[in-house]
Amino acid sequence: MDTIFQTVAIVGPGLVGGSLGMALRRQGLAGRVIGIGRRERSLREALDRGAVDEVTLDPARGVREADLTVLATPIGAFERLLPAVAEGMKRGTLLSEVASAKQGVIRTASGALAHRPDVAFIPTHPMAGSERRGASHAAADMFEGSVCIFTPLEGTPDAALDALRRMWEGVGATVRLMDPADHDRLVARISHLPHLAAAALMDMVTPDEAAFAGGGLTDTTRVASGDPKLWRDICEFNAEQIAFALEAYGARMQSIRALLTEGRYDELEEVLRRAKSKRDELLDNRGN
Amino acid sequence: MDTIFQTVAIVGPGLVGGSLGMALRRQGLAGRVIGIGRRERSLREALDRGAVDEVTLDPARGVREADLTVLATPIGAFERLLPAVAEGMKRGTLLSEVASAKQGVIRTASGALAHRPDVAFIPTHPMAGSERRGASHAAADMFEGSVCIFTPLEGTPDAALDALRRMWEGVGATVRLMDPADHDRLVARISHLPHLAAAALMDMVTPDEAAFAGGGLTDTTRVASGDPKLWRDICEFNAEQIAFALEAYGARMQSIRALLTEGRYDELEEVLRRAKSKRDELLDNRGN
Repeated sequence: MDTIFQTVAIVGPGLVGGSLGMALRRQGLAGRVIGIGRRERSLREALDRGAVDEVTLDPARGVREADLTVLATPIGAFERLLPAVAEGMKRGTLLSEVASAKQGVIRTASGALAHRPDVAFIPTHPMAGSERRGASHAAADMFEGSVCIFTPLEGTPDAALDALRRMWEGVGATVRLMDPADHDRLVARISHLPHLAAAALMDMVTPDEAAFAGGGLTDTTRVASGDPKLWRDICEFNAEQIAFALEAYGARMQSIRALLTEGRYDELEEVLRRAKSKRDELLDNRGN
Repeated sequence: MDTIFQTVAIVGPGLVGGSLGMALRRQGLAGRVIGIGRRERSLREALDRGAVDEVTLDPARGVREADLTVLATPIGAFERLLPAVAEGMKRGTLLSEVASAKQGVIRTASGALAHRPDVAFIPTHPMAGSERRGASHAAADMFEGSVCIFTPLEGTPDAALDALRRMWEGVGATVRLMDPADHDRLVARISHLPHLAAAALMDMVTPDEAAFAGGGLTDTTRVASGDPKLWRDICEFNAEQIAFALEAYGARMQSIRALLTEGRYDELEEVLRRAKSKRDELLDNRGN
Protein backbone atom coordinates (compact mmCIF):
# COMPACT_ATOMS: atom_id res chain seq x y z
CA MET A 1 0.00 0.00 0.00
CA ASP A 2 0.97 3.64 -0.30
CA THR A 3 2.68 5.34 2.56
CA ILE A 4 0.16 7.50 4.43
CA PHE A 5 2.47 9.01 7.03
CA GLN A 6 6.16 9.48 6.41
CA THR A 7 7.06 9.24 10.10
CA VAL A 8 4.87 7.76 12.83
CA ALA A 9 5.81 8.06 16.49
CA ILE A 10 4.28 5.50 18.85
CA VAL A 11 4.48 6.44 22.50
CA GLY A 12 4.35 3.10 24.32
CA PRO A 13 5.00 0.45 21.66
CA GLY A 14 3.56 -2.39 23.78
CA LEU A 15 0.75 -4.81 22.95
CA VAL A 16 -1.47 -2.38 21.03
CA GLY A 17 1.14 0.22 20.05
CA GLY A 18 3.61 -2.48 19.04
CA SER A 19 0.99 -4.30 16.99
CA LEU A 20 0.13 -1.05 15.22
CA GLY A 21 3.84 -0.49 14.46
CA MET A 22 4.22 -4.03 13.11
CA ALA A 23 1.12 -3.68 10.94
CA LEU A 24 2.14 -0.24 9.59
CA ARG A 25 5.59 -1.50 8.70
CA ARG A 26 4.33 -4.70 7.11
CA GLN A 27 1.75 -2.83 5.02
CA GLY A 28 4.14 -0.05 4.08
CA LEU A 29 1.73 2.52 5.49
CA ALA A 30 4.49 4.43 7.31
CA GLY A 31 7.91 5.42 6.03
CA ARG A 32 9.38 4.78 9.46
CA VAL A 33 8.07 4.11 12.92
CA ILE A 34 9.71 5.60 16.01
CA GLY A 35 9.06 3.92 19.36
CA ILE A 36 9.07 6.08 22.47
CA GLY A 37 9.20 4.46 25.89
CA ARG A 38 10.35 4.73 29.48
CA ARG A 39 12.33 1.52 29.77
CA GLU A 40 15.18 0.43 27.53
CA ARG A 41 14.12 -3.18 27.87
CA SER A 42 10.62 -2.55 26.47
CA LEU A 43 12.07 -0.55 23.60
CA ARG A 44 14.53 -3.30 22.78
CA GLU A 45 11.61 -5.74 22.77
CA ALA A 46 9.72 -3.51 20.33
CA LEU A 47 12.80 -3.36 18.08
CA ASP A 48 13.25 -7.13 18.29
CA ARG A 49 9.62 -7.73 17.33
CA GLY A 50 9.97 -5.46 14.31
CA ALA A 51 7.36 -3.10 15.76
CA VAL A 52 9.50 0.02 15.26
CA ASP A 53 12.47 1.19 13.18
CA GLU A 54 14.10 3.24 15.89
CA VAL A 55 13.56 4.07 19.55
CA THR A 56 14.11 6.83 22.05
CA LEU A 57 13.50 7.44 25.75
CA ASP A 58 12.82 11.13 25.08
CA PRO A 59 9.20 11.89 24.09
CA ALA A 60 9.85 15.46 22.94
CA ARG A 61 12.65 14.28 20.68
CA GLY A 62 10.78 11.19 19.47
CA VAL A 63 7.79 13.14 18.20
CA ARG A 64 9.81 15.97 16.63
CA GLU A 65 9.79 14.55 13.10
CA ALA A 66 6.51 12.65 13.33
CA ASP A 67 3.62 13.33 10.97
CA LEU A 68 1.46 11.24 13.26
CA THR A 69 1.99 10.61 16.96
CA VAL A 70 -0.02 7.87 18.66
CA LEU A 71 -0.26 7.66 22.44
CA ALA A 72 -0.46 3.96 23.23
CA THR A 73 0.68 3.92 26.84
CA PRO A 74 -1.69 3.08 29.69
CA ILE A 75 -4.23 5.86 30.02
CA GLY A 76 -2.79 6.85 33.41
CA ALA A 77 0.41 8.09 31.76
CA PHE A 78 -1.30 10.56 29.41
CA GLU A 79 -1.32 13.46 31.84
CA ARG A 80 2.42 13.16 32.39
CA LEU A 81 3.29 12.64 28.71
CA LEU A 82 1.05 15.14 26.96
CA PRO A 83 2.96 18.34 27.81
CA ALA A 84 6.25 17.02 26.37
CA VAL A 85 4.48 15.56 23.34
CA ALA A 86 2.52 18.78 22.68
CA GLU A 87 5.72 20.75 23.09
CA GLY A 88 7.72 18.62 20.69
CA MET A 89 5.33 18.00 17.79
CA LYS A 90 5.92 19.49 14.34
CA ARG A 91 3.52 22.17 13.09
CA GLY A 92 0.31 20.94 11.50
CA THR A 93 0.74 17.30 12.41
CA LEU A 94 -1.63 14.75 13.86
CA LEU A 95 -1.94 13.43 17.41
CA SER A 96 -3.99 10.36 18.20
CA GLU A 97 -4.37 7.91 21.08
CA VAL A 98 -5.84 4.45 21.58
CA ALA A 99 -7.12 4.47 25.16
CA SER A 100 -10.40 2.81 26.12
CA ALA A 101 -12.12 5.89 27.61
CA LYS A 102 -12.68 9.08 25.67
CA GLN A 103 -14.31 11.93 27.56
CA GLY A 104 -11.66 12.00 30.29
CA VAL A 105 -8.85 11.76 27.75
CA ILE A 106 -10.33 14.58 25.70
CA ARG A 107 -10.50 16.78 28.81
CA THR A 108 -6.88 15.97 29.68
CA ALA A 109 -5.64 16.49 26.12
CA SER A 110 -7.55 19.73 25.59
CA GLY A 111 -5.59 21.37 28.39
CA ALA A 112 -2.23 20.15 27.15
CA LEU A 113 -3.01 21.10 23.53
CA ALA A 114 -4.53 24.51 24.25
CA HIS A 115 -1.48 26.29 22.82
CA ARG A 116 -1.24 23.94 19.79
CA PRO A 117 -4.32 24.69 17.66
CA ASP A 118 -2.25 23.62 14.64
CA VAL A 119 -2.21 20.01 15.88
CA ALA A 120 -5.24 17.87 14.97
CA PHE A 121 -6.12 15.63 17.90
CA ILE A 122 -8.16 12.53 16.99
CA PRO A 123 -9.12 10.16 19.82
CA THR A 124 -9.52 6.56 18.66
CA HIS A 125 -10.20 3.21 20.26
CA PRO A 126 -9.20 0.06 18.40
CA MET A 127 -11.41 -2.68 19.86
CA ALA A 128 -8.70 -5.32 19.95
CA GLY A 129 -6.08 -6.56 22.38
CA SER A 130 -5.94 -8.96 25.27
CA GLU A 131 -5.07 -9.06 28.96
CA ARG A 132 -1.41 -9.41 28.02
CA ARG A 133 1.05 -6.57 27.89
CA GLY A 134 4.22 -5.73 26.05
CA ALA A 135 5.51 -5.86 22.50
CA SER A 136 6.42 -9.52 22.94
CA HIS A 137 2.69 -10.30 22.57
CA ALA A 138 2.18 -7.84 19.70
CA ALA A 139 1.00 -9.14 16.33
CA ALA A 140 0.83 -7.52 12.91
CA ASP A 141 -2.66 -8.96 12.35
CA MET A 142 -4.05 -7.74 15.70
CA PHE A 143 -6.52 -5.37 14.02
CA GLU A 144 -7.63 -7.57 11.12
CA GLY A 145 -11.42 -7.71 11.22
CA SER A 146 -11.67 -5.47 14.29
CA VAL A 147 -13.53 -2.20 14.75
CA CYS A 148 -11.68 1.04 15.45
CA ILE A 149 -13.88 3.73 16.96
CA PHE A 150 -13.06 7.37 16.22
CA THR A 151 -14.51 10.05 18.50
CA PRO A 152 -13.39 13.16 16.60
CA LEU A 153 -13.78 16.66 18.02
CA GLU A 154 -15.61 19.42 16.20
CA GLY A 155 -13.42 21.29 13.77
CA THR A 156 -11.03 18.41 13.03
CA PRO A 157 -9.86 18.86 9.42
CA ASP A 158 -11.32 16.30 7.05
CA ALA A 159 -7.90 15.61 5.54
CA ALA A 160 -6.53 14.56 8.95
CA LEU A 161 -9.53 12.36 9.69
CA ASP A 162 -9.32 10.81 6.27
CA ALA A 163 -5.62 10.00 6.57
CA LEU A 164 -6.08 8.36 9.95
CA ARG A 165 -9.07 6.44 8.68
CA ARG A 166 -7.10 5.10 5.73
CA MET A 167 -4.32 4.08 8.10
CA TRP A 168 -6.64 2.02 10.33
CA GLU A 169 -8.40 0.53 7.35
CA GLY A 170 -4.98 -0.33 5.97
CA VAL A 171 -4.21 -2.45 9.04
CA GLY A 172 -7.51 -4.30 8.69
CA ALA A 173 -9.92 -2.37 10.93
CA THR A 174 -13.37 -1.00 10.16
CA VAL A 175 -13.65 2.62 11.32
CA ARG A 176 -16.80 3.82 13.08
CA LEU A 177 -17.40 7.40 14.17
CA MET A 178 -19.04 7.94 17.53
CA ASP A 179 -19.79 10.64 20.06
CA PRO A 180 -17.29 10.45 22.95
CA ALA A 181 -20.08 10.07 25.53
CA ASP A 182 -21.72 7.29 23.53
CA HIS A 183 -18.36 5.56 23.27
CA ASP A 184 -17.77 5.74 27.00
CA ARG A 185 -21.20 4.33 27.75
CA LEU A 186 -20.67 1.55 25.22
CA VAL A 187 -17.28 0.42 26.51
CA ALA A 188 -18.45 0.67 30.10
CA ARG A 189 -21.04 -1.97 29.22
CA ILE A 190 -19.15 -4.27 26.87
CA SER A 191 -15.63 -4.02 28.26
CA HIS A 192 -15.20 -2.29 31.61
CA LEU A 193 -18.19 -3.95 33.31
CA PRO A 194 -17.18 -7.47 32.18
CA HIS A 195 -13.74 -6.73 33.60
CA LEU A 196 -15.06 -5.75 37.02
CA ALA A 197 -17.61 -8.59 36.98
CA ALA A 198 -14.78 -11.05 36.34
CA ALA A 199 -12.57 -9.49 39.01
CA ALA A 200 -15.39 -9.66 41.56
CA LEU A 201 -16.03 -13.34 40.76
CA MET A 202 -12.37 -14.14 41.21
CA ASP A 203 -12.07 -12.03 44.33
CA MET A 204 -15.00 -13.87 45.94
CA VAL A 205 -13.35 -17.25 45.60
CA THR A 206 -11.15 -18.51 48.42
CA PRO A 207 -7.95 -20.40 47.55
CA ASP A 208 -9.57 -23.59 48.88
CA GLU A 209 -12.51 -23.12 46.55
CA ALA A 210 -10.31 -22.17 43.61
CA ALA A 211 -8.58 -25.56 43.84
CA PHE A 212 -11.81 -27.12 42.53
CA ALA A 213 -12.49 -24.69 39.73
CA GLY A 214 -12.98 -26.02 36.22
CA GLY A 215 -12.65 -24.21 32.92
CA GLY A 216 -15.84 -22.23 33.56
CA LEU A 217 -14.31 -20.03 36.24
CA THR A 218 -10.92 -19.61 34.56
CA ASP A 219 -12.50 -18.60 31.25
CA THR A 220 -15.07 -16.29 32.78
CA THR A 221 -12.31 -14.50 34.68
CA ARG A 222 -9.64 -14.32 31.97
CA VAL A 223 -9.76 -10.53 31.81
CA ALA A 224 -9.17 -10.40 35.58
CA SER A 225 -5.54 -11.24 34.82
CA GLY A 226 -5.20 -7.80 33.24
CA ASP A 227 -2.90 -5.21 34.75
CA PRO A 228 -4.45 -3.79 37.97
CA LYS A 229 -2.89 -0.33 37.65
CA LEU A 230 -3.92 -0.02 34.01
CA TRP A 231 -7.50 -0.98 34.87
CA ARG A 232 -7.63 1.24 37.91
CA ASP A 233 -6.81 4.15 35.61
CA ILE A 234 -9.38 3.10 33.02
CA CYS A 235 -11.97 2.92 35.81
CA GLU A 236 -10.97 6.35 37.03
CA PHE A 237 -11.25 7.85 33.53
CA ASN A 238 -14.66 6.28 32.91
CA ALA A 239 -15.97 6.10 36.49
CA GLU A 240 -19.37 7.62 35.86
CA GLN A 241 -20.39 5.34 32.99
CA ILE A 242 -18.98 2.26 34.71
CA ALA A 243 -21.00 3.08 37.82
CA PHE A 244 -24.16 3.22 35.66
CA ALA A 245 -23.27 -0.09 34.04
CA LEU A 246 -22.64 -1.67 37.47
CA GLU A 247 -26.02 -0.45 38.62
CA ALA A 248 -27.78 -1.95 35.60
CA TYR A 249 -25.88 -5.17 36.06
CA GLY A 250 -26.70 -5.34 39.76
CA ALA A 251 -30.40 -4.92 38.94
CA ARG A 252 -30.16 -7.69 36.35
CA MET A 253 -28.52 -10.04 38.85
CA GLN A 254 -31.16 -9.15 41.44
CA SER A 255 -33.93 -10.07 39.05
CA ILE A 256 -32.24 -13.37 38.24
CA ARG A 257 -32.00 -14.05 41.96
CA ALA A 258 -35.72 -13.37 42.29
CA LEU A 259 -36.46 -15.89 39.52
CA LEU A 260 -34.56 -18.48 41.56
CA THR A 261 -36.00 -17.74 44.97
CA GLU A 262 -39.53 -17.55 43.56
CA GLY A 263 -39.11 -20.75 41.57
CA ARG A 264 -39.77 -19.05 38.21
CA TYR A 265 -37.53 -21.46 36.33
CA ASP A 266 -39.25 -21.07 32.95
CA GLU A 267 -38.41 -17.38 32.99
CA LEU A 268 -34.87 -18.18 34.09
CA GLU A 269 -34.52 -20.54 31.15
CA GLU A 270 -35.73 -17.72 28.90
CA VAL A 271 -32.95 -15.44 30.19
CA LEU A 272 -30.38 -18.18 29.62
CA ARG A 273 -31.75 -18.84 26.15
CA ARG A 274 -31.60 -15.15 25.21
CA ALA A 275 -28.04 -14.85 26.52
CA LYS A 276 -26.98 -17.93 24.57
CA SER A 277 -28.53 -16.76 21.33
CA LYS A 278 -26.96 -13.32 21.69
CA ARG A 279 -23.56 -14.86 22.28
CA ASP A 280 -23.91 -17.39 19.48
CA GLU A 281 -24.89 -14.55 17.14
CA LEU A 282 -21.87 -12.54 18.27
CA LEU A 283 -19.57 -15.45 17.41
CA ASP A 284 -21.33 -16.07 14.10
CA ASN A 285 -20.89 -12.46 13.02
CA ARG A 286 -17.26 -12.86 13.77
CA GLY A 287 -16.90 -16.02 11.79
CA ASN A 288 -15.76 -18.03 14.82
CA MET B 1 -4.58 -51.30 34.17
CA ASP B 2 -6.70 -54.00 35.76
CA THR B 3 -10.38 -54.14 35.00
CA ILE B 4 -12.32 -52.69 37.94
CA PHE B 5 -15.86 -53.22 36.68
CA GLN B 6 -16.73 -56.00 34.25
CA THR B 7 -19.68 -54.11 32.78
CA VAL B 8 -20.29 -50.37 33.07
CA ALA B 9 -23.55 -48.81 31.90
CA ILE B 10 -23.46 -45.12 31.06
CA VAL B 11 -26.86 -43.47 30.86
CA GLY B 12 -26.33 -40.49 28.58
CA PRO B 13 -22.96 -41.08 26.88
CA GLY B 14 -22.56 -37.43 25.83
CA LEU B 15 -19.74 -35.02 26.62
CA VAL B 16 -18.97 -36.22 30.15
CA GLY B 17 -20.46 -39.73 29.96
CA GLY B 18 -18.88 -40.34 26.57
CA SER B 19 -15.50 -39.10 27.78
CA LEU B 20 -15.73 -41.44 30.76
CA GLY B 21 -16.54 -44.35 28.43
CA MET B 22 -13.61 -43.49 26.16
CA ALA B 23 -11.24 -43.25 29.12
CA LEU B 24 -12.46 -46.50 30.72
CA ARG B 25 -12.05 -48.36 27.45
CA ARG B 26 -8.66 -46.88 26.70
CA GLN B 27 -7.37 -47.69 30.19
CA GLY B 28 -8.92 -51.15 30.25
CA LEU B 29 -10.75 -50.27 33.46
CA ALA B 30 -14.04 -51.76 32.22
CA GLY B 31 -14.62 -55.05 30.46
CA ARG B 32 -17.33 -53.48 28.36
CA VAL B 33 -19.22 -50.20 28.32
CA ILE B 34 -22.93 -50.03 27.48
CA GLY B 35 -24.34 -46.71 26.34
CA ILE B 36 -27.98 -45.95 27.14
CA GLY B 37 -29.72 -43.06 25.45
CA ARG B 38 -32.96 -41.67 24.11
CA ARG B 39 -31.95 -40.90 20.55
CA GLU B 40 -30.42 -43.34 18.08
CA ARG B 41 -28.32 -40.58 16.59
CA SER B 42 -26.61 -39.76 19.90
CA LEU B 43 -25.95 -43.44 20.54
CA ARG B 44 -24.46 -43.90 17.09
CA GLU B 45 -22.22 -40.89 17.79
CA ALA B 46 -21.08 -42.51 21.04
CA LEU B 47 -20.31 -45.75 19.19
CA ASP B 48 -18.46 -43.86 16.45
CA ARG B 49 -16.34 -42.03 19.02
CA GLY B 50 -15.41 -45.31 20.68
CA ALA B 51 -17.10 -44.19 23.88
CA VAL B 52 -19.12 -47.40 24.28
CA ASP B 53 -19.04 -51.04 23.12
CA GLU B 54 -22.77 -51.41 22.68
CA VAL B 55 -25.87 -49.27 22.99
CA THR B 56 -29.55 -49.53 23.84
CA LEU B 57 -32.56 -47.24 24.04
CA ASP B 58 -33.95 -49.23 26.97
CA PRO B 59 -32.58 -48.15 30.39
CA ALA B 60 -33.91 -51.16 32.33
CA ARG B 61 -32.34 -53.52 29.86
CA GLY B 62 -29.10 -51.54 29.55
CA VAL B 63 -28.34 -51.63 33.27
CA ARG B 64 -29.33 -55.31 33.77
CA GLU B 65 -25.82 -56.70 33.51
CA ALA B 66 -23.96 -53.62 34.77
CA ASP B 67 -21.70 -53.77 37.82
CA LEU B 68 -21.62 -49.99 37.75
CA THR B 69 -24.27 -47.69 36.31
CA VAL B 70 -23.41 -44.01 35.85
CA LEU B 71 -26.14 -41.42 35.23
CA ALA B 72 -24.57 -38.84 32.95
CA THR B 73 -27.67 -37.24 31.43
CA PRO B 74 -28.67 -33.66 32.21
CA ILE B 75 -29.77 -33.48 35.84
CA GLY B 76 -33.36 -32.76 34.77
CA ALA B 77 -33.73 -36.29 33.38
CA PHE B 78 -32.85 -38.07 36.63
CA GLU B 79 -36.36 -38.12 38.04
CA ARG B 80 -37.71 -39.76 34.90
CA LEU B 81 -34.85 -42.27 34.57
CA LEU B 82 -34.27 -43.41 38.13
CA PRO B 83 -37.31 -45.70 38.52
CA ALA B 84 -36.39 -47.80 35.44
CA VAL B 85 -32.74 -47.85 36.40
CA ALA B 86 -33.48 -48.84 40.01
CA GLU B 87 -35.85 -51.50 38.73
CA GLY B 88 -33.36 -53.00 36.29
CA MET B 89 -30.10 -53.07 38.24
CA LYS B 90 -28.47 -56.35 39.30
CA ARG B 91 -28.32 -57.15 43.02
CA GLY B 92 -25.46 -55.62 44.98
CA THR B 93 -24.20 -53.35 42.22
CA LEU B 94 -23.18 -49.72 42.19
CA LEU B 95 -25.06 -46.64 40.99
CA SER B 96 -23.32 -43.34 40.50
CA GLU B 97 -24.03 -40.03 38.75
CA VAL B 98 -22.03 -37.02 37.63
CA ALA B 99 -24.41 -34.07 38.01
CA SER B 100 -23.25 -30.70 39.30
CA ALA B 101 -25.62 -30.45 42.29
CA LYS B 102 -25.81 -33.03 45.04
CA GLN B 103 -28.42 -32.46 47.74
CA GLY B 104 -31.32 -32.34 45.29
CA VAL B 105 -30.05 -35.41 43.43
CA ILE B 106 -29.65 -37.33 46.68
CA ARG B 107 -33.25 -36.49 47.62
CA THR B 108 -34.52 -37.61 44.22
CA ALA B 109 -32.44 -40.80 44.22
CA SER B 110 -33.33 -41.75 47.79
CA GLY B 111 -36.97 -42.07 46.84
CA ALA B 112 -36.31 -44.13 43.74
CA LEU B 113 -33.83 -46.40 45.54
CA ALA B 114 -35.89 -46.93 48.70
CA HIS B 115 -36.67 -50.51 47.72
CA ARG B 116 -33.10 -51.23 46.58
CA PRO B 117 -31.00 -51.17 49.77
CA ASP B 118 -28.65 -53.64 48.06
CA VAL B 119 -27.58 -50.98 45.57
CA ALA B 120 -24.77 -48.64 46.69
CA PHE B 121 -25.49 -45.11 45.46
CA ILE B 122 -22.44 -42.84 45.25
CA PRO B 123 -22.97 -39.27 44.02
CA THR B 124 -19.90 -37.83 42.28
CA HIS B 125 -19.03 -34.65 40.43
CA PRO B 126 -16.10 -34.68 38.03
CA MET B 127 -14.99 -31.04 37.74
CA ALA B 128 -14.35 -31.14 34.02
CA GLY B 129 -16.26 -30.48 30.84
CA SER B 130 -17.17 -27.47 28.75
CA GLU B 131 -20.19 -25.64 27.40
CA ARG B 132 -20.35 -28.15 24.55
CA ARG B 133 -22.57 -31.18 24.45
CA GLY B 134 -22.58 -34.59 22.86
CA ALA B 135 -20.17 -37.47 22.42
CA SER B 136 -18.68 -35.76 19.36
CA HIS B 137 -16.88 -33.42 21.79
CA ALA B 138 -15.92 -36.21 24.22
CA ALA B 139 -12.24 -36.89 24.89
CA ALA B 140 -10.49 -39.78 26.62
CA ASP B 141 -8.22 -37.35 28.47
CA MET B 142 -11.08 -35.12 29.71
CA PHE B 143 -10.41 -36.03 33.36
CA GLU B 144 -6.60 -35.97 33.34
CA GLY B 145 -5.51 -33.64 36.13
CA SER B 146 -9.07 -32.83 37.18
CA VAL B 147 -10.73 -33.22 40.56
CA CYS B 148 -13.66 -35.60 41.04
CA ILE B 149 -15.72 -34.84 44.15
CA PHE B 150 -17.47 -37.72 45.91
CA THR B 151 -20.32 -36.91 48.30
CA PRO B 152 -20.96 -40.40 49.70
CA LEU B 153 -23.94 -41.17 51.94
CA GLU B 154 -23.58 -42.72 55.36
CA GLY B 155 -23.40 -46.49 55.27
CA THR B 156 -21.90 -46.77 51.80
CA PRO B 157 -19.73 -49.92 51.79
CA ASP B 158 -15.99 -49.16 51.74
CA ALA B 159 -15.45 -51.69 48.94
CA ALA B 160 -17.88 -49.83 46.66
CA LEU B 161 -16.32 -46.47 47.44
CA ASP B 162 -12.86 -47.87 46.92
CA ALA B 163 -13.71 -49.38 43.52
CA LEU B 164 -15.24 -46.14 42.28
CA ARG B 165 -12.29 -44.16 43.58
CA ARG B 166 -9.84 -46.42 41.75
CA MET B 167 -11.89 -45.99 38.59
CA TRP B 168 -11.76 -42.19 38.70
CA GLU B 169 -8.09 -42.20 39.63
CA GLY B 170 -7.56 -44.58 36.71
CA VAL B 171 -8.92 -41.97 34.27
CA GLY B 172 -6.65 -39.30 35.70
CA ALA B 173 -8.74 -37.56 38.36
CA THR B 174 -7.95 -36.79 41.98
CA VAL B 175 -10.81 -37.86 44.24
CA ARG B 176 -11.93 -35.58 47.08
CA LEU B 177 -14.63 -36.50 49.60
CA MET B 178 -17.05 -33.78 50.60
CA ASP B 179 -20.31 -33.23 52.42
CA PRO B 180 -23.16 -32.77 49.87
CA ALA B 181 -24.11 -29.38 51.33
CA ASP B 182 -20.50 -28.18 51.19
CA HIS B 183 -20.31 -29.37 47.61
CA ASP B 184 -23.44 -27.48 46.61
CA ARG B 185 -22.21 -24.30 48.25
CA LEU B 186 -18.83 -24.68 46.54
CA VAL B 187 -20.16 -25.23 43.01
CA ALA B 188 -22.72 -22.47 43.44
CA ARG B 189 -19.78 -20.10 43.95
CA ILE B 190 -17.22 -21.40 41.47
CA SER B 191 -19.45 -22.72 38.70
CA HIS B 192 -23.14 -21.81 38.86
CA LEU B 193 -22.62 -18.16 39.84
CA PRO B 194 -20.04 -17.56 37.06
CA HIS B 195 -22.55 -19.06 34.66
CA LEU B 196 -25.34 -16.69 35.68
CA ALA B 197 -22.95 -13.75 35.88
CA ALA B 198 -21.87 -14.43 32.30
CA ALA B 199 -25.45 -14.88 31.11
CA ALA B 200 -26.48 -11.60 32.73
CA LEU B 201 -23.58 -9.75 31.08
CA MET B 202 -24.53 -11.13 27.70
CA ASP B 203 -28.23 -10.51 28.25
CA MET B 204 -27.54 -6.84 29.07
CA VAL B 205 -25.81 -6.17 25.79
CA THR B 206 -27.90 -5.00 22.82
CA PRO B 207 -27.08 -6.35 19.35
CA ASP B 208 -25.78 -2.89 18.38
CA GLU B 209 -23.42 -2.91 21.34
CA ALA B 210 -22.36 -6.49 20.73
CA ALA B 211 -21.10 -5.54 17.26
CA PHE B 212 -18.27 -3.66 19.02
CA ALA B 213 -17.32 -6.31 21.53
CA GLY B 214 -13.73 -7.48 21.68
CA GLY B 215 -12.33 -10.70 23.10
CA GLY B 216 -13.03 -9.53 26.66
CA LEU B 217 -16.78 -9.95 26.42
CA THR B 218 -16.73 -13.15 24.36
CA ASP B 219 -14.32 -14.84 26.75
CA THR B 220 -16.06 -13.65 29.89
CA THR B 221 -19.34 -15.01 28.56
CA ARG B 222 -18.15 -18.33 27.08
CA VAL B 223 -20.17 -20.40 29.55
CA ALA B 224 -23.29 -18.47 28.56
CA SER B 225 -23.29 -20.57 25.38
CA GLY B 226 -24.15 -23.59 27.52
CA ASP B 227 -27.46 -25.37 27.10
CA PRO B 228 -30.30 -23.26 28.61
CA LYS B 229 -32.47 -26.20 29.63
CA LEU B 230 -29.56 -28.04 31.25
CA TRP B 231 -28.62 -24.94 33.22
CA ARG B 232 -32.18 -24.17 34.16
CA ASP B 233 -32.33 -27.62 35.77
CA ILE B 234 -28.99 -27.17 37.53
CA CYS B 235 -30.28 -23.86 38.90
CA GLU B 236 -33.47 -25.54 40.07
CA PHE B 237 -31.55 -28.34 41.82
CA ASN B 238 -29.19 -25.91 43.55
CA ALA B 239 -31.44 -22.85 43.83
CA GLU B 240 -30.83 -22.12 47.48
CA GLN B 241 -27.05 -22.09 47.33
CA ILE B 242 -27.02 -20.18 44.05
CA ALA B 243 -29.28 -17.53 45.58
CA PHE B 244 -26.77 -17.15 48.45
CA ALA B 245 -23.91 -16.87 45.97
CA LEU B 246 -25.82 -14.27 43.95
CA GLU B 247 -26.41 -12.29 47.09
CA ALA B 248 -22.73 -12.33 48.04
CA TYR B 249 -21.78 -11.39 44.49
CA GLY B 250 -24.28 -8.55 44.41
CA ALA B 251 -22.82 -7.17 47.62
CA ARG B 252 -19.32 -7.43 46.17
CA MET B 253 -20.37 -5.55 43.03
CA GLN B 254 -22.10 -2.92 45.17
CA SER B 255 -18.92 -2.32 47.14
CA ILE B 256 -16.91 -2.01 43.93
CA ARG B 257 -19.43 0.52 42.69
CA ALA B 258 -18.99 2.49 45.91
CA LEU B 259 -15.21 2.55 45.39
CA LEU B 260 -15.84 4.12 41.97
CA THR B 261 -18.46 6.66 42.95
CA GLU B 262 -16.46 7.70 46.02
CA GLY B 263 -13.22 7.96 44.06
CA ARG B 264 -11.44 5.34 46.19
CA TYR B 265 -9.27 4.18 43.31
CA ASP B 266 -6.40 2.86 45.43
CA GLU B 267 -8.79 0.42 47.09
CA LEU B 268 -10.21 -0.48 43.69
CA GLU B 269 -6.71 -1.23 42.45
CA GLU B 270 -6.25 -3.46 45.51
CA VAL B 271 -9.35 -5.48 44.58
CA LEU B 272 -8.10 -5.84 41.00
CA ARG B 273 -4.65 -6.84 42.24
CA ARG B 274 -6.09 -9.49 44.56
CA ALA B 275 -8.30 -10.89 41.80
CA LYS B 276 -5.37 -11.04 39.41
CA SER B 277 -3.09 -12.79 41.88
CA LYS B 278 -5.80 -15.32 42.73
CA ARG B 279 -6.36 -16.08 39.08
CA ASP B 280 -2.66 -16.25 38.26
CA GLU B 281 -2.21 -18.66 41.19
CA LEU B 282 -5.11 -20.77 39.91
CA LEU B 283 -3.47 -21.06 36.49
CA ASP B 284 -0.05 -21.78 38.01
CA ASN B 285 -1.44 -24.64 40.07
CA ARG B 286 -2.88 -26.02 36.91
CA GLY B 287 0.35 -25.75 35.00
CA ASN B 288 -1.18 -23.47 32.35
